[in-house]
Amino acid sequence: MADRTGDERRLAAAAWTRVAEPGDPAAGILRRHLGPDGALDWLRHLARDGWSGRLVPPGLPRSAQAAHRWDDAVARWLPRLDGLDIRRELSVLHSLGGRLVVPGDPEWPAVVDDLADRAPAALWVRGEGRLDTPGRRVAVVGLRASTAYGEHVAAQLAIELTERGVVVVSGGAYGIDAAAHRGALSTGGATWAVMAGGVDRPYPAGNGTLLEAVLADGVLVAEAAPGSAPRRHRFLERNRLIAALGQVCVVVEAGWRSGALSTARHAAELLRPLAAVPGPVTSTASAGCHRLLREYDAVCVTDAADVLELLAPSGEDLVEGRPVQAGLLDGLDPVGARVLDALPARATATLPGLVRAAGLSEHEVRSGIGRLGLGGRVERVGSGWRRTPGR
Amino acid sequence: MADRTGDERRLAAAAWTRVAEPGDPAAGILRRHLGPDGALDWLRHLARDGWSGRLVPPGLPRSAQAAHRWDDAVARWLPRLDGLDIRRELSVLHSLGGRLVVPGDPEWPAVVDDLADRAPAALWVRGEGRLDTPGRRVAVVGLRASTAYGEHVAAQLAIELTERGVVVVSGGAYGIDAAAHRGALSTGGATWAVMAGGVDRPYPAGNGTLLEAVLADGVLVAEAAPGSAPRRHRFLERNRLIAALGQVCVVVEAGWRSGALSTARHAAELLRPLAAVPGPVTSTASAGCHRLLREYDAVCVTDAADVLELLAPSGEDLVEGRPVQAGLLDGLDPVGARVLDALPARATATLPGLVRAAGLSEHEVRSGIGRLGLGGRVERVGSGWRRTPGR
Repeated sequence: MADRTGDERRLAAAAWTRVAEPGDPAAGILRRHLGPDGALDWLRHLARDGWSGRLVPPGLPRSAQAAHRWDDAVARWLPRLDGLDIRRELSVLHSLGGRLVVPGDPEWPAVVDDLADRAPAALWVRGEGRLDTPGRRVAVVGLRASTAYGEHVAAQLAIELTERGVVVVSGGAYGIDAAAHRGALSTGGATWAVMAGGVDRPYPAGNGTLLEAVLADGVLVAEAAPGSAPRRHRFLERNRLIAALGQVCVVVEAGWRSGALSTARHAAELLRPLAAVPGPVTSTASAGCHRLLREYDAVCVTDAADVLELLAPSGEDLVEGRPVQAGLLDGLDPVGARVLDALPARATATLPGLVRAAGLSEHEVRSGIGRLGLGGRVERVGSGWRRTPGR
Repeated sequence: MADRTGDERRLAAAAWTRVAEPGDPAAGILRRHLGPDGALDWLRHLARDGWSGRLVPPGLPRSAQAAHRWDDAVARWLPRLDGLDIRRELSVLHSLGGRLVVPGDPEWPAVVDDLADRAPAALWVRGEGRLDTPGRRVAVVGLRASTAYGEHVAAQLAIELTERGVVVVSGGAYGIDAAAHRGALSTGGATWAVMAGGVDRPYPAGNGTLLEAVLADGVLVAEAAPGSAPRRHRFLERNRLIAALGQVCVVVEAGWRSGALSTARHAAELLRPLAAVPGPVTSTASAGCHRLLREYDAVCVTDAADVLELLAPSGEDLVEGRPVQAGLLDGLDPVGARVLDALPARATATLPGLVRAAGLSEHEVRSGIGRLGLGGRVERVGSGWRRTPGR
C-alpha cells in the first residue's frame, strides 16, 4: 500500500468521529493498529465486497482480535459510512473559523490519549484559545439544576483559578457549568467548553451568548462532527473528555445520581485527583458531592487554594495567599493558658492564689506568668499580677 | 500495711479529682501503681514530713519514675491537699441524689480507661441513667455560636440516633451541644451531658432547664468534684472524656480553630471513628468540619444512617431504612439507554432508523429494544417502536 498523505489521514480521523460514536473502544483499537485511514479502508472494503465467516480485522494482535464482537461493531459502523461526506462537515467547521485537530498535530492535547482505546479520533475546535496552551487546567462540573449557593461557589472558584492562570474546563451546560464559564470570563481568563454535539450548534441554545463569549480566549471543542445532535449517550462520553482534559476534577454540586458523578468516575479512572465541594446536608443538590466525599474518597475543597494544592502537590508555587495554618489550639502553651484562665477578670491575683486556682506548682505558675508577661497579656501590680487591660 | 477498706479507696479516688486537675498524667500514673489511696498516703506523708533530695514516688517502675518532674507534680498537688474534705463534696453530691462512680464499680464505664494515665480518678454522676447501660453511644459536638442549619442537623441526628436506642453524649453547651441534647430528649431518648465543672452547678446556667431534663433518663457526669468551677483548661479536658465515652465522634459545626476540634483530636487519638457534617463552604461555622474532612480524614456524614454505619461496620443490624444504593448511572444497560435515547419523543421509529440514530448494530438495537420492551418502556407499533406513553 502506498504512503498516504497527511491530509487523507486527517480526513479519515475526522470520518471516524461520524462513523463511530464517541468512546467506541472497538473503533479505537482498530485505529490504533491500522491507523484511522487503514481502519476506514477496511470498513469501505467490507461495505463494497461484503464478507463471509468469522469477521476479524487484519493486522490486529490476537488479544485485540478477541476483545470485541467485530460483526456487531461493523454492523454499527456500516450504516453511517453510507453517504458519508466528511469534507462537507469540514467546510461547515471552516466557515465558522474552526479547525480540526487530530493526533500528531501540534495542538493535539496529549492528555486525552490517557483514554487509550476510548480516546477521540479527532477534535473539532472553535475559538481563539489553543488546546496546547501550556499551564494548568481544572475541570469544574456539576448539576444543571443548581442552587444559588452552588453557582456562587462555582463562579468564585473559576474566578480565583483563572486569576492564577488556570484554564477552567467545563461542559457549557446550564447551572454549575455556566457559572464556572462565567466566572472564568469575568476575569478575562480562558475557559474551554466541551460540547456533546457538534461545535457548529453550541448547546444548550440558551447559553448561546455565553458560549460565543468563550470563543474570545478559550475554545469550544467536541469530538462529534458538526451537525451531530447532543444525545444522552454523547453527554456521558463528553464527560470522559472533560475529565481527561482537566488535571483535577472538581464537582461543585451533584445529585445523588447526577451526571456530574459520571465525570467524577471518569476522572477517578484516569487517576486525576477528584475533589468535591461540600454543601448543606439538607440540600439534595449537594448529595452527590457528599457521596463522593464519603464513598469515593474525593478531597473536600472549599476554595481555589484547596484545588491548587491538588494541582501542585510537590510545592510548586501556584499556591498563594493561603494563610499559615494555625494549630488546633491557639498560641498559648498549656501552662500559660491555665495561668491566664485562673487570673480573675479584673482583680489582681497573688502567687499562692494562682497556685491554688490553676492547680499548678509555684514553679509552673512563675514560668507561665513570665511567658504571659512577655506576650503582654499580664502585668505586675505590687506583689501580684493582673490581666493587661484591653487585651 | 493493712488492707484498706473499699470505702477508703473510693474516698481517695474522689480526693484525687480535687487534688489534681483533670487529665494530669502524673497523677494517673501514680494512682495506677500505688492505687488512689496509696498515692494519696504518699502525698500526705510529704505534706507532713517534707522531703529532701530528688523526689521519686516509691514503687514505680524506672520508666514511670523518669516520665514526670515529680517535684513539679507534688508542688501542684500539695496546695490543694491543705484543707481538703472530700466527704463534704460527697454530701453535696448525695443531697442532689447523685453518686460517685470509681474504677472497679459495676457502673464504671470501662471505655474511659482507654485514656490510660489520663483517665479520670472517679466520676461524679447525677441522673436516672446509668453509665453501664448496654448499647451504643455517639458523641455529638460542635460550635457554641452555631447556625440554625447546624442546630437543625444536630437535633435531627440526635432524634434519629435515639430512636434507634443510641445514647447521645455531648457537653451541655449552648449551640450544637444543646441542640443534640434537645433532639435526644424530644424522642424520650437518653442523653449524657459531660460537665467541665461540678455536677452540682450545671453549666451554662442558661441551659439549666435543659440539663435538669437530661436527668430524667440520662446523666450529668463530671470528673471535677462538686464546687469546681468550669475553666478553659477543664473544658478541654472534658472534651477528652466526651470523646472517650462516645464510640463515634460526630462534629456538626466547628470553626477553623474551634474547641470542638479538640474533641475530634481526642477521638482520633482514642481510635474512635471521627465524622464531620459538611455545610456551606461560605459558612465559617462549617470551616472546622471541612478541615476535618480534608486534613484529618474524617468521614463525611449527612444523616444518622451514615453515623450508624460507623458504629456497626460489620453489618450488624443497627442500620435500618437506608435505601439500596443505586449505581452512578440509572438502571438501564448502556445499549438500552442508547436505543431509548434514539427513539423520538412522540413518533414511531423503524429498525433501520434506530440503527442509524443510535449508532448501534441491528443486532444490538434488537436486543436493546427487547429489554426495553420487557421493562415496559417501549412498545411495538406496526413494524416500528415508540416510547410507552406516560413513561
